[in-house]
Amino acid sequence: MKWARIEIGNKSSCGIVEGNQIALVKDGIFDPINLTGQKVKIEDAKFLTPIEPKTFYAAGLNYSEHVIEQALANNQEPNIPKEPHIGYRANNALIAHNQPIIKPSDSSEEFQYEGELVAIIGKKTKNVSEQDALNYVFGYTIGNDVSERKWQRDDRTMWRAKNTDTFKPMGPWIETELDLNRLVTTVRINKVETISFPTNNMIFGVACFISAMSKYLTLVPGDMIWMGTEGHSVNMKPGDICEIEINKIGTLSNPIVLGNN
Amino acid sequence: MKWARIEIGNKSSCGIVEGNQIALVKDGIFDPINLTGQKVKIEDAKFLTPIEPKTFYAAGLNYSEHVIEQALANNQEPNIPKEPHIGYRANNALIAHNQPIIKPSDSSEEFQYEGELVAIIGKKTKNVSEQDALNYVFGYTIGNDVSERKWQRDDRTMWRAKNTDTFKPMGPWIETELDLNRLVTTVRINKVETISFPTNNMIFGVACFISAMSKYLTLVPGDMIWMGTEGHSVNMKPGDICEIEINKIGTLSNPIVLGNN
Repeated sequence: MKWARIEIGNKSSCGIVEGNQIALVKDGIFDPINLTGQKVKIEDAKFLTPIEPKTFYAAGLNYSEHVIEQALANNQEPNIPKEPHIGYRANNALIAHNQPIIKPSDSSEEFQYEGELVAIIGKKTKNVSEQDALNYVFGYTIGNDVSERKWQRDDRTMWRAKNTDTFKPMGPWIETELDLNRLVTTVRINKVETISFPTNNMIFGVACFISAMSKYLTLVPGDMIWMGTEGHSVNMKPGDICEIEINKIGTLSNPIVLGNN
Repeated sequence: MKWARIEIGNKSSCGIVEGNQIALVKDGIFDPINLTGQKVKIEDAKFLTPIEPKTFYAAGLNYSEHVIEQALANNQEPNIPKEPHIGYRANNALIAHNQPIIKPSDSSEEFQYEGELVAIIGKKTKNVSEQDALNYVFGYTIGNDVSERKWQRDDRTMWRAKNTDTFKPMGPWIETELDLNRLVTTVRINKVETISFPTNNMIFGVACFISAMSKYLTLVPGDMIWMGTEGHSVNMKPGDICEIEINKIGTLSNPIVLGNN
């Protein structure tokens, strides 16, 4: 089942994707389903981020080639993480499917996408085993962990490199039924494929991260975990459109526009 | 004016501190004030965190002696930050005044407080000047940035060193009228003072951080910024009570208990 959240007359409504339409429900995605009877065509929908997350977790370095790539770019020895140590991103940066990614006027040319699987927590959990961890996932969506690499190298933290307003597109919706091993992530700039990789080819998988995190942290419905990306990214410039597809979920599409700050 | 949030019959209520009582209001701290007429004695109140924050920002290294202290502990050269680069903490870790800080059973002896001023954003802002920045602050409270130093040194991120459940006490309430230059932060363990420092003796002040952050980030009501701490902290152990006082605001008090994870 695919859950979307869209804007109807200045209010947010949740709904279930059925073919080329979204069937609206009365309540939220974690509530019992009561259809309103209203349907909105996908092409007419103004998408919102599928959830307003509680805590925004991010795995960071979680695919081998990406770790090596980032190390080379920074003239460092690759250092494959030995433990699933989670990081954080910020809600201010979130935008939805189709909304513009604004490239700050003072940012460098090294302005890059990162196509990521996003796990949405559906049930409260603490101290869960790796075997049981996926039972606490409500579903999965797609995230674009937009990164300004010069700021990422030079700043003391990743605050503006990764958390500037509009740098975290997510969506278009949440898929609740998935076989993680059958997923492929594909990124396209202006319809030209730039990378494609097996989504679940992670250093530490979703279940491993949830189990490790829950030893110290209580996870609650609405928390989300961005699972990292693979390989090398190419630069994006104003006028481009960045699409991230994960088969069985859908395609997250966002245009790049130049900011005026 | 001092704003508290307390639990009344499983629900949260906001109120204004008047002497030794809290006068409850009908709505939230950002709404017009409508008193309910009900008052609760401070000694009887079950405090909640004064807000449920949107994004939880933290300045990190923001006092000179603390930077030097942390560098020495890590056998590194002190590196005083040259720019106000903000960091992040996680909402799962927040607890209120009087609630226990749970020391994980597998944590080291280096389990330490950090007494911090916390600025609460009251109005939406982007691109604000340093001169105008404090007009967007609703008020100030006290935070204890509890840190497990071994994990802080050894882990790839600060996820469990600083964001384990209960590691972020805040409160007891928000003071809306303050002269930052008249504040002194004092920490006591079991009523014995361990450090006292001028609160506003920061490398980058509240206005500087808000202005710099707002160049890239939209700040919204309910965001909060923890401003860092000064000097050396001593270890806390189960059975201790940690008090952080900032004169003109109040005292945040939390007992330490041993966890069973």
